[in-house]
Amino acid sequence: MPRFEPKNRDYRAVATATFERQPAMRTLGISIARLEPGEVDLAMAYSAQFTQQNGFVHAGVITAGLDNACGIAAFTLMPPGADILTVEFKTNLLAPARGERFVFRADVVKPGRTLTICEARAFAETDGVETLVAIMTGTLMALMPRN
Amino acid sequence: MPRFEPKNRDYRAVATATFERQPAMRTLGISIARLEPGEVDLAMAYSAQFTQQNGFVHAGVITAGLDNACGIAAFTLMPPGADILTVEFKTNLLAPARGERFVFRADVVKPGRTLTICEARAFAETDGVETLVAIMTGTLMALMPRN
Amino acid sequence: MPRFEPKNRDYRAVATATFERQPAMRTLGISIARLEPGEVDLAMAYSAQFTQQNGFVHAGVITAGLDNACGIAAFTLMPPGADILTVEFKTNLLAPARGERFVFRADVVKPGRTLTICEARAFAETDGVETLVAIMTGTLMALMPRN
Amino acid sequence: MPRFEPKNRDYRAVATATFERQPAMRTLGISIARLEPGEVDLAMAYSAQFTQQNGFVHAGVITAGLDNACGIAAFTLMPPGADILTVEFKTNLLAPARGERFVFRADVVKPGRTLTICEARAFAETDGVETLVAIMTGTLMALMPRN
Repeated sequence: MPRFEPKNRDYRAVATATFERQPAMRTLGISIARLEPGEVDLAMAYSAQFTQQNGFVHAGVITAGLDNACGIAAFTLMPPGADILTVEFKTNLLAPARGERFVFRADVVKPGRTLTICEARAFAETDGVETLVAIMTGTLMALMPRN
Repeated sequence: MPRFEPKNRDYRAVATATFERQPAMRTLGISIARLEPGEVDLAMAYSAQFTQQNGFVHAGVITAGLDNACGIAAFTLMPPGADILTVEFKTNLLAPARGERFVFRADVVKPGRTLTICEARAFAETDGVETLVAIMTGTLMALMPRN
Repeated sequence: MPRFEPKNRDYRAVATATFERQPAMRTLGISIARLEPGEVDLAMAYSAQFTQQNGFVHAGVITAGLDNACGIAAFTLMPPGADILTVEFKTNLLAPARGERFVFRADVVKPGRTLTICEARAFAETDGVETLVAIMTGTLMALMPRN
Repeated sequence: MPRFEPKNRDYRAVATATFERQPAMRTLGISIARLEPGEVDLAMAYSAQFTQQNGFVHAGVITAGLDNACGIAAFTLMPPGADILTVEFKTNLLAPARGERFVFRADVVKPGRTLTICEARAFAETDGVETLVAIMTGTLMALMPRN
């Protein structure tokens, strides 16, 4: 059973549409793999284009995935008409981002009318084995249209 | 006068070479604009490919620039033979990343044998006017080859 | 000249009164040393009661000073009637907090209607020499009374 | 079954002794409630001395508890002879720290030879009900004696 009750019946369609309007996600090859109220998995295939000097995926790219996972997870719990922005995030890089595929898994820790706090974890997958490579804590903000 | 004395006479060549070995920097269109001991400016032109749903540059891409600026700034102060990795960073997003060109400016706050702490600021430039769009604090680690 | 224009003419009295209503500040021996719009210095004498296992001031106590400096700096720019709370902060500990006296210096980086971002630095003073011992970035939120 | 294998057979005695050598913990009324390899609960009774302007426990005091929980959790996995210091932490404050008793629960996410990453949560207890009031991610460093 999901831990959270969405305020927007169309949360799935709205969150998916917002995700898909981001050219950066398409360029980075990141897509939605799982979407529940307050929970999101994004997936990304390895691409040599986005690596740093040792052939690992760049921390900024890992952060883009984690931040988007947080944003979409938070967005599923926001009311109709809300837009979302990231206030801040903090990433710890735990292991080299080396793998065939990456998963960015975010959970809402505390939803709020204005601010929502999320945690996310990035896993690298190689031969079906997952390694935790990074963690994020992020603060997201709901922007409501002014009347 | 620079605030720091580099331990590696070839700091400029070594830092530049490390930067240039990162495919992610080429893909994102980020280059070194200024390089002093413990201080780096990176520059990036706006690219619609790396935007989020409102046409602003994605926070992950801004973070990639900030993180790299921190990494290169820290790296200029490391001894010959060191490799570098990012331990963690924290980014606050202050304004929409909207502009023709972006500058990522990093300064070493505290160099160390193992850990170096940096601060960085991202500016968006439009018609020659700079706007502060994000700030980062980051921790970088020197890896010395084992004998 | 101050960088910011306060929205509350009585900012000094209001910020000071809010600071003084905090028993924790009295218990820790922290007081306001300087107060300008968006800028605050707090001061604390060394006290053996608040040290960790090596005789340095505990990181949580340093954080209490940094967080309060950020909070008061942000509060000076908030409108009349606002209350303030800390959303989050991040502290890097740069050197042992060893000294006779400590100064917590905060500056508003970006004021906002809802969120204000501050940076703060903690200095330890011994024989008149200041050492930077910690830095903080913090996000503060204005709470306006509901009508 | 514990998730981690301690390197120091005496981890319990050594971690407890280090905790008890901290005057700040005694002053704040914080004690060890549970200690396993890589996992620690600290407990603190409410004290009006350490509150902010609304009667809630000050964020710096909550952070002192979270930081110590992280430190002790990390320390249980360090080799004999190590000393420990906090590199950095990030705290999100989720709810007012209002309660009769507080628990600071830390888990090692990634132990390492030099750096250990921990997560911690602060809970306020009232009438036996726990409320999550804050979360921390922290980086701890092992200091080995030079020979």
